[in-house]
Amino acid sequence: MKRVKVSNNVIRRLPRYLRKLDELSAAGVSRISSGELGRQLGLTPSQIRQDFSCFGEFGQQGYGYKVTALRAEIANILGMDRGFAAVIIGVGNIGHALMCNFNFKQWGFEVKAAFDVKSELVGKEVEGITVHHIDELESYITENHVDAAVLCVPKQYAVSTTELLTSKGINAIWNFTNVELTAPESSTIVENVHFSDSLLSLSYFIAEDIDEKAAKAARLNK
Amino acid sequence: MKRVKVSNNVIRRLPRYLRKLDELSAAGVSRISSGELGRQLGLTPSQIRQDFSCFGEFGQQGYGYKVTALRAEIANILGMDRGFAAVIIGVGNIGHALMCNFNFKQWGFEVKAAFDVKSELVGKEVEGITVHHIDELESYITENHVDAAVLCVPKQYAVSTTELLTSKGINAIWNFTNVELTAPESSTIVENVHFSDSLLSLSYFIAEDIDEKAAKAARLNK
Repeated sequence: MKRVKVSNNVIRRLPRYLRKLDELSAAGVSRISSGELGRQLGLTPSQIRQDFSCFGEFGQQGYGYKVTALRAEIANILGMDRGFAAVIIGVGNIGHALMCNFNFKQWGFEVKAAFDVKSELVGKEVEGITVHHIDELESYITENHVDAAVLCVPKQYAVSTTELLTSKGINAIWNFTNVELTAPESSTIVENVHFSDSLLSLSYFIAEDIDEKAAKAARLNK
Repeated sequence: MKRVKVSNNVIRRLPRYLRKLDELSAAGVSRISSGELGRQLGLTPSQIRQDFSCFGEFGQQGYGYKVTALRAEIANILGMDRGFAAVIIGVGNIGHALMCNFNFKQWGFEVKAAFDVKSELVGKEVEGITVHHIDELESYITENHVDAAVLCVPKQYAVSTTELLTSKGINAIWNFTNVELTAPESSTIVENVHFSDSLLSLSYFIAEDIDEKAAKAARLNK
């Protein structure tokens, strides 16, 4: 696919568009205007048109977007049709929750193997995925094509595991360890799931809401 | 606290600053310039100075930032010192993983209770938190002060649970259900943890990387 450089903010909105289009599709909606799509997503119609224009022209003036066609385009842009191979490293609570509850296939990834140190897990299958001993990770990624590693190890092993992965040519990490894995100038693609960042954003908005209500009450009592 | 309106992007960077400052503090660094902080975070010094200027002046020209003082200011802005009360709704894999592995207290939240339907869980304690039957949720939030609900219920119960919560005055939801809970114009504060959005962003960057390498190889072979 020919690529143009698009801003990080646009890339971050694409999965939201995809989710919304899946919802619309499930509700039997076949066509939607940028105005209505914007209203449902809390974005302006012009922002939506501008986002999509980064990748070519999907809509038609006065006609709107075809939901299934737009969905297919966005899925293609996101690489969902490429069947990326993934491995899960660390089958603790979060690794286990991902294996049991998260539908990797729906998003274009296939989990090929999992790795852990715990002897009671090694050799077992979780949702059809075999758990190998972590000592086998190096030979596994040498012998098999792996596009991405899902990193769920305890904090203290995060960086050393990343070094092993990148030394063996794995270029993409989905990071659940809450540790900054690489230097900013690294070429490794790291997508962080920082629960604490999300909770602290929530905290900010709660605090802001309380402060604004207090300020309003103070003005009314003057 | 007196509040000025700051952009969403700035708010989203604050938890990253906090994490970095904690790392620096742990490494014994007591002072840092905006240049060095920027280098470590992949941001420009002027962006960092601009972000912090939204909340007042923390640094000193030619002297840099005091790590502990700046950390305390950011924690204060984020509301981490307010002791928000939270409840966890749904003790499946993800709810359980949060209760066992996620340190809510470290981020200023106290988990007061958890709720589930499964009889084998009800009445039990998980990490010191009692699991109540979901039928008790309404009376619990009527009788107790709750700032935020952590929503980990199955998809099909996400919206009805949200309606119950908001009808009882709960104004903030940390949402793990992958469902858009409220209309964009709603006053409820919802912070979504969409694993799939994060994975799809990773997918985009992997696909982009592959396409760019292919395009480069094609140019070299011409």
